[in-house]
Amino acid sequence: MNAAKVDKIVSEVLVGNKRYIARAISMLENESSQAAEIIKGLYPHCGRAHVIGITGPPGAGKSTMVGALVNQFRQSDKKCGIILIDPSSPFTGGAILGDRIRMPEHTTDKGVFIRSMGTRGSLGGLALATRDTVKVLDAAGYDLIIIETVGIGQAETDIVQTADTVVVVSVPGLGDHIQTLKAGVMEIADIFAVNKADTDGASKTVRELKLMIELSNYPAAERPPVIPVSSLKNEGIDKLAGSILELHSQALESGRFEKRRKEQLAIELNEIIRWQLIKRINSKISQHELDVSINELYLHQITPHETAHNILKSLLKGDE
Amino acid sequence: MNAAKVDKIVSEVLVGNKRYIARAISMLENESSQAAEIIKGLYPHCGRAHVIGITGPPGAGKSTMVGALVNQFRQSDKKCGIILIDPSSPFTGGAILGDRIRMPEHTTDKGVFIRSMGTRGSLGGLALATRDTVKVLDAAGYDLIIIETVGIGQAETDIVQTADTVVVVSVPGLGDHIQTLKAGVMEIADIFAVNKADTDGASKTVRELKLMIELSNYPAAERPPVIPVSSLKNEGIDKLAGSILELHSQALESGRFEKRRKEQLAIELNEIIRWQLIKRINSKISQHELDVSINELYLHQITPHETAHNILKSLLKGDE
Repeated sequence: MNAAKVDKIVSEVLVGNKRYIARAISMLENESSQAAEIIKGLYPHCGRAHVIGITGPPGAGKSTMVGALVNQFRQSDKKCGIILIDPSSPFTGGAILGDRIRMPEHTTDKGVFIRSMGTRGSLGGLALATRDTVKVLDAAGYDLIIIETVGIGQAETDIVQTADTVVVVSVPGLGDHIQTLKAGVMEIADIFAVNKADTDGASKTVRELKLMIELSNYPAAERPPVIPVSSLKNEGIDKLAGSILELHSQALESGRFEKRRKEQLAIELNEIIRWQLIKRINSKISQHELDVSINELYLHQITPHETAHNILKSLLKGDE
Repeated sequence: MNAAKVDKIVSEVLVGNKRYIARAISMLENESSQAAEIIKGLYPHCGRAHVIGITGPPGAGKSTMVGALVNQFRQSDKKCGIILIDPSSPFTGGAILGDRIRMPEHTTDKGVFIRSMGTRGSLGGLALATRDTVKVLDAAGYDLIIIETVGIGQAETDIVQTADTVVVVSVPGLGDHIQTLKAGVMEIADIFAVNKADTDGASKTVRELKLMIELSNYPAAERPPVIPVSSLKNEGIDKLAGSILELHSQALESGRFEKRRKEQLAIELNEIIRWQLIKRINSKISQHELDVSINELYLHQITPHETAHNILKSLLKGDE
């Protein structure tokens, strides 16, 4: 592909052509050699979108909630990009059927773009691929970009932390979940949504969450609201949507938005450097050289630290 | 500390002086500037120990099992080094009380060395710190080095894979556990131990594990045995200990030991390179320079890929 084709993709993404948006994302996922050029063309047009992360345990009804939220946002004509992350799934962009099944009412809406991402192709890590997908959708003019992750492990936490506003979804009856929240997801939430609020135990879950928030390290002014919703009955969704937008406005004014984006950029930069360096090492050191080194290590003729030092010395400038 | 002191530590570790062994491990954990020199002094004396990884879900009774195994191994006068890993714990070498509580009968045995490791200090990652601790204990003459990890997440899997023989511990009644095994721990097991074999449901757990192994991708000759044990009643422990040693003998003869060690060395080398590089970048690029770059990124004046490229260009040799 030549520069003219990159220009074509960039200009079509910028006018919101969905076919080219999908194509650009696939190229980024597949580590196309043009990926960096595409991002370069799009990046100056980024920065307008509000990125919303939605996470929670399996069975919390996240997809239904995202569907209901999108309905709500569409009423005020906001364009919505949705990125569905399933790190355990080998399916990515090709999973059109999956998207359709999960969000049938939005697939024909021109103001909505849905994309599934799994592990395939994202050699540089799913978090990096997600960040680049956000850039494409941002440049394409989507006002709100919703990242929905399945599960609440480290990978999901990393991904959801690329968002401006993070919604952690709970449901009544997942006893261990509150425990899990304590362990690490607690501090990433800007908003807690308690889904299935029409079922038994919902008010108990709300109370427990509020208590946990009080006992936690949140500054008083930044304590996340706990919002009960019923996605199926569409109750509380307007309040949740309003809270998401309101928190974002506050963050823009207070400087929290800028601070968080800059922290995220530092993390992204670190990840890209590591990833580019691994590629560089692989291109500079042959498998044969590596095998010889590994054999020396196995025979305890040299330490791993010394071998690492020698490899870096052959790559890095300076007198180390 | 000067070279003479490093020499002293190395020579005292080599004769098995526990005080110096503990000191050497602390220096490695704390990324002492002498760490690489200490490893260099010890590494030629490594390679004799048999490293055993023991993992399983919380509540599976791993510590009791390790205690019983050590008793068994001590009967044939094998020196045992035990590394207790708890990634969620902030306590490390200092957690002597914890060690004593967990394995009271071994703390006065001269042929046993126990060390707890948590997250503190292990900046280069707990897996790297564990590998270096294994080197110290190996050089100090411990015949068997047992790494016990709490939990079965990715961090624990990474750590336990630094072992020659991996024992995955199950117990009856943890319904979800078998499910979790399927998801990722399954393929790292050389041996399955079903603990609390005197309780209800143990034979069902054994059957389920055997079925799962049959359905899995293990080559017929490498299918892990499933061994029921009762650590508290000391039943089956002799069989488990025998199986661990027998598998190791087979692996030494068949070349599996060498193959696995070399794979582990490649992973270790990769991790050390990444870690050394991050340190190098931090020492070459000032916080001010980084802040300026992050601000340019925030203003969308340059893409993260370009900034990463520029930083690497300033560090790496060649014409990229």
